[in-house]
Amino acid sequence: MVKTVICSVGISAARKIPEVRPRDLSNWVKQQPSVKDAAEKIFLTFRDIRPEGESLKSELSAEIHSLVRIGITDGDRVILLASSTEDGYCCAIAVEKYLHHYWTNLEVQIKQVQGLQVLDAELFRTRGVIEFVGHILKEIDKYGASNIILNPTGGYKALVPYTVLVGMLKGVKCDYIFEQSTKFLELPPLPVEFIRSSFETHKGLFEKVENDIITQAEWERNIYYDDERERLKSFFEFSDGQVILSAIGSLFLSEIRKPSVRVPFLSQKAIKDCFENIRQLDDCDPFRFLSRVAASEETFKKKIHLDAGNGLLWLKPGRTTDRYLVSVEGWRLLVWRAIREDQEGAKYASKITVNPETERRSYSPFMRMDFVD
Amino acid sequence: MVKTVICSVGISAARKIPEVRPRDLSNWVKQQPSVKDAAEKIFLTFRDIRPEGESLKSELSAEIHSLVRIGITDGDRVILLASSTEDGYCCAIAVEKYLHHYWTNLEVQIKQVQGLQVLDAELFRTRGVIEFVGHILKEIDKYGASNIILNPTGGYKALVPYTVLVGMLKGVKCDYIFEQSTKFLELPPLPVEFIRSSFETHKGLFEKVENDIITQAEWERNIYYDDERERLKSFFEFSDGQVILSAIGSLFLSEIRKPSVRVPFLSQKAIKDCFENIRQLDDCDPFRFLSRVAASEETFKKKIHLDAGNGLLWLKPGRTTDRYLVSVEGWRLLVWRAIREDQEGAKYASKITVNPETERRSYSPFMRMDFVD
Repeated sequence: MVKTVICSVGISAARKIPEVRPRDLSNWVKQQPSVKDAAEKIFLTFRDIRPEGESLKSELSAEIHSLVRIGITDGDRVILLASSTEDGYCCAIAVEKYLHHYWTNLEVQIKQVQGLQVLDAELFRTRGVIEFVGHILKEIDKYGASNIILNPTGGYKALVPYTVLVGMLKGVKCDYIFEQSTKFLELPPLPVEFIRSSFETHKGLFEKVENDIITQAEWERNIYYDDERERLKSFFEFSDGQVILSAIGSLFLSEIRKPSVRVPFLSQKAIKDCFENIRQLDDCDPFRFLSRVAASEETFKKKIHLDAGNGLLWLKPGRTTDRYLVSVEGWRLLVWRAIREDQEGAKYASKITVNPETERRSYSPFMRMDFVD
Repeated sequence: MVKTVICSVGISAARKIPEVRPRDLSNWVKQQPSVKDAAEKIFLTFRDIRPEGESLKSELSAEIHSLVRIGITDGDRVILLASSTEDGYCCAIAVEKYLHHYWTNLEVQIKQVQGLQVLDAELFRTRGVIEFVGHILKEIDKYGASNIILNPTGGYKALVPYTVLVGMLKGVKCDYIFEQSTKFLELPPLPVEFIRSSFETHKGLFEKVENDIITQAEWERNIYYDDERERLKSFFEFSDGQVILSAIGSLFLSEIRKPSVRVPFLSQKAIKDCFENIRQLDDCDPFRFLSRVAASEETFKKKIHLDAGNGLLWLKPGRTTDRYLVSVEGWRLLVWRAIREDQEGAKYASKITVNPETERRSYSPFMRMDFVD
């Protein structure tokens, strides 16, 4: 399987440029005929150092060191997220050249991230980190969470929290190298999730902020309670009296719209069906089944047994008698009914019909499938 | 209000020791008569540089720079989490001396974190970072999440993900300085939570691993399904065929046992009460009220109206007619009934009684208060 490793890129590739201290690298780059020349010069300082042994740690850049430890192979894909600074960009080019030199069939892409720099914190917050997160989300969409590894070993320390957050909430693992170690640390996707209910109440506001620039006063008018404002603060950035979506806010919206997992919600009828009937059977575990189909699109598709029309589907776990009538509504998997074929007969689908538009009220509220007896 | 700032500490305090490169600091310390002497020498290199202006960024240590930007004042408390290395510890002492020099009434504590170093990744994972997280959790217990600021500006980059995680999941804000900037970045507590239901199923295993060392084979026997193992992996560390709780695992257990917020769960009767009755009233919002009392212990205590015995309490929102019969069960706030005083009369508490031990079955399942109409 092709892995895609997404790396933030710093300037450690330039460590062997003689007599240039990290703070002065940007001046040094300016003194070169072109960015391309500068990158070539940097590359030549380590081109002949093979990616192995002690050199990894002491002579090669943080990105190269970590990529080797992660175990990239020809045919994999590496995405280098470079800062908007010239020195950062040069280093990314030098790293790319090196990777191509030793892994000829590796696909390497450099993306220079607008606003990503460390001199202007405001610009970092309101542009750099938002674009940075945006780039990662795009790759996750393209290649799928389980084929991606995030690698925050190189680059600004201030990016680490965001990389970890994206990893956690989109279910992508994060591998990074321990400063002077030779092993990488793995942060597997954690069982955490956004508290999504905050979104429902303020959906209109999120969409407004996404499409328009609104003023802070307008934002405050939209969020009535102080405790709500406090809770939602991290989703927005405030700058010169104007409000935009923060990096966290856009991550949140992406998770609402393209959820990495769905959450099952049971109708009032399905609660009765599951607790009073199906759960009593020795070989049926309705809650585990519904969790599994909600967590994986692939499993979900495999379990579709019949299309009941109007967006409703009948799911069948396997050789058991339980059947579930469900629909997908954004990040929610709505469970309308849960029945037993041995009770309803082989023609259960024509017997039990629901018109979601006209009958919804007699099924609602759909309660999140999270309970205690 | 006294703030407590918890800082991871690195070795940037030693940047002015002449001719010592960061990698050689540990040797330099060994050559000094004692750790105390080394710390004193480091301190003297910056004692007379006042904590202000350009020096903050270019001459003082990362910890001092960020503490000044965060705005510590006399009377506040600073906790310095030092690595287990001698050079790290020396730097922590030097920072402490400096802080006392300029803020005479600041309380400063140094905690040397066992196993916290960067040469042995295994030791970092199985000891250092677990102790690091343990120290932070202890302080949160002692001083309360809202009085604490986490500051990962100094110290190992590998600690940043863990600091951020603790902050997010315990509701503590994280402030750190942007590398070459003069402003700090604030990561406010995010609306995220652990998916706690994974705990219930494996409670016994968590407790066993916490109290005993168990083998990997035993761990696998306890977690039947592959997808479950994958999901729970981050809570454990595997080393030499043995299993211990990881840093994330102990954070999770702490959140289960001393939840920073509770989650409301509605009984089958309370679902009917809220949706069919109370929600219809113009001036009542049962869901907002229950969310608020679940989120804050202080608000919860203020809203207790009557003690109904057997661990049950009647809550009263304010001047409205709605009343809620609740009990606290770990991280869950169980809502047994929701009634209207204008319907049940002033003596509702003696009229509506519940014996949770004998009658629980007719109220269960309690469903998490998260729904869609």
